[in-house]
Amino acid sequence: MENIIVTSLIKKTMKIGPDIQDLTLEVSALLEESRIRQGVIHLNVIGSTGSLTTIEFESGVVQDLKDAIERMAPRGLEYKHELAWHDGNGHSHVQAALMGPSISICVKDGKLQLGTWQQVVVINHDNKPRQRKIAITLIGTR
Amino acid sequence: MENIIVTSLIKKTMKIGPDIQDLTLEVSALLEESRIRQGVIHLNVIGSTGSLTTIEFESGVVQDLKDAIERMAPRGLEYKHELAWHDGNGHSHVQAALMGPSISICVKDGKLQLGTWQQVVVINHDNKPRQRKIAITLIGTR
Amino acid sequence: MENIIVTSLIKKTMKIGPDIQDLTLEVSALLEESRIRQGVIHLNVIGSTGSLTTIEFESGVVQDLKDAIERMAPRGLEYKHELAWHDGNGHSHVQAALMGPSISICVKDGKLQLGTWQQVVVINHDNKPRQRKIAITLIGTR
Repeated sequence: MENIIVTSLIKKTMKIGPDIQDLTLEVSALLEESRIRQGVIHLNVIGSTGSLTTIEFESGVVQDLKDAIERMAPRGLEYKHELAWHDGNGHSHVQAALMGPSISICVKDGKLQLGTWQQVVVINHDNKPRQRKIAITLIGTR
Repeated sequence: MENIIVTSLIKKTMKIGPDIQDLTLEVSALLEESRIRQGVIHLNVIGSTGSLTTIEFESGVVQDLKDAIERMAPRGLEYKHELAWHDGNGHSHVQAALMGPSISICVKDGKLQLGTWQQVVVINHDNKPRQRKIAITLIGTR
Repeated sequence: MENIIVTSLIKKTMKIGPDIQDLTLEVSALLEESRIRQGVIHLNVIGSTGSLTTIEFESGVVQDLKDAIERMAPRGLEYKHELAWHDGNGHSHVQAALMGPSISICVKDGKLQLGTWQQVVVINHDNKPRQRKIAITLIGTR
C-alpha cells in the first residue's frame, strides 16, 4: 500500500491579536481531497507571532482563551524586544512562543480524530491585522 | 524499504481535572506491536478538555504541574463560557487549549526517544471524571 | 515515489535554565542532507527539563520569553518535587511540561516552512548546565 505525502497552505485574514479563527473546514477539505484514510495531518504556522491549538470554537471559550493569553504575556509589560525594535509587539512574540507553532491530528477511516466540540484554530498574536499562513503536510494511505 | 502506517486508540479512565496519567506503557506496547524501528509516533487527545505532554511521572512533579495549570486558568475566575453553558468547566477549556492537544515522539532502533525520567502523559482538565481517548498514528520502517 | 524516513540527533551544550538556543542551522543541514523536498521534520527533546518552540531569535525576545517562563513557574515557589528529591529543579520540570516536548515543521520544495524571522529553538529549563539532545525524524519524498 503506497504512502501519500501532500503539502498545502491555508491562508487566513486575521484581526489584531489575540484573534482566533477556526480552520477545521479548510483542514477537512484538504483531507477529503487527498483521499487519505489512515495517517496524520501536520500544521505549522508560518511566522513568529502566530500559533495553533484546538478548542471548542464557541464565542465564550474563545474570549476566555484570549483573556488567558493576555494574562500570560500582557501588552502593558516592558518587553526587551521593544528597546531595539519599537514595533509594540513584544507580547505577541512571547505569547506565540508559549503556545507553540505546530499541532498534528491523527486520521482514521478518512476522518480527523477530533471530538465533536473540538476545532483546529490559528491564533494571530500580532498587534496588527495579518494574513496568517499555515503550512500543511498530510501523510497516509488511501 | 516499505513505510508502515498504523492507527490506534488508547482509552484512559480519569478523575476530575486536573488529573494526569502516564501513557508510556501503552505507547511502548503499540510501538513494539507495530515492529517499527525508525519513525515517529503521533498522539492527539480527542476532546477539547484534554491535553498531552511529557513529564517525570513522580507524585511531587505531578502535583506541581497541577498547581501550575490551576494558576494559568484558575477555576474561580469568571469565564464567558459559563454565561451561555453553565457547565462549570470554562477553566478546563482554557487550560487544555494552552497546553495543546498533540505531541510527536521520534522512534529510533525500535525505541521511543525519551529520557529515562520522561513519561508521556495525558491530562484531563474537565470538571468531571472522563474516559479520555487518545488517537495514535505510528509511521516508520521496520 | 518512494517515501524516505531519516532519524538523527542534535546535541546542544546549554547553560543554566532558562537558556534558549537556535537549532535552525542544524535542522536545515539535516534537511538538505536528506534531499527531502516535500514532507515534515519532527523534533522532540530528550529529557523532562527541556522543551522546543519557535521564536524570532533576537536577544530582546529571547530575554522576554525567559521572563515569561519564569513567571509561569518561578524558582522561588515551594515545589512538592523538592520535598522528595531536593535537587532544586521543581520549577524546571513544570516549565518544560507546560511548554511541551515536541514540534513538527512542514517541508515544501526542500525548504522548512518557517517565516524569515522565525527560528527553531530548544530551551534548557534545568537548574544546571546540560548537553541537551534533540531527536529528529524526517519523513518525505525527494
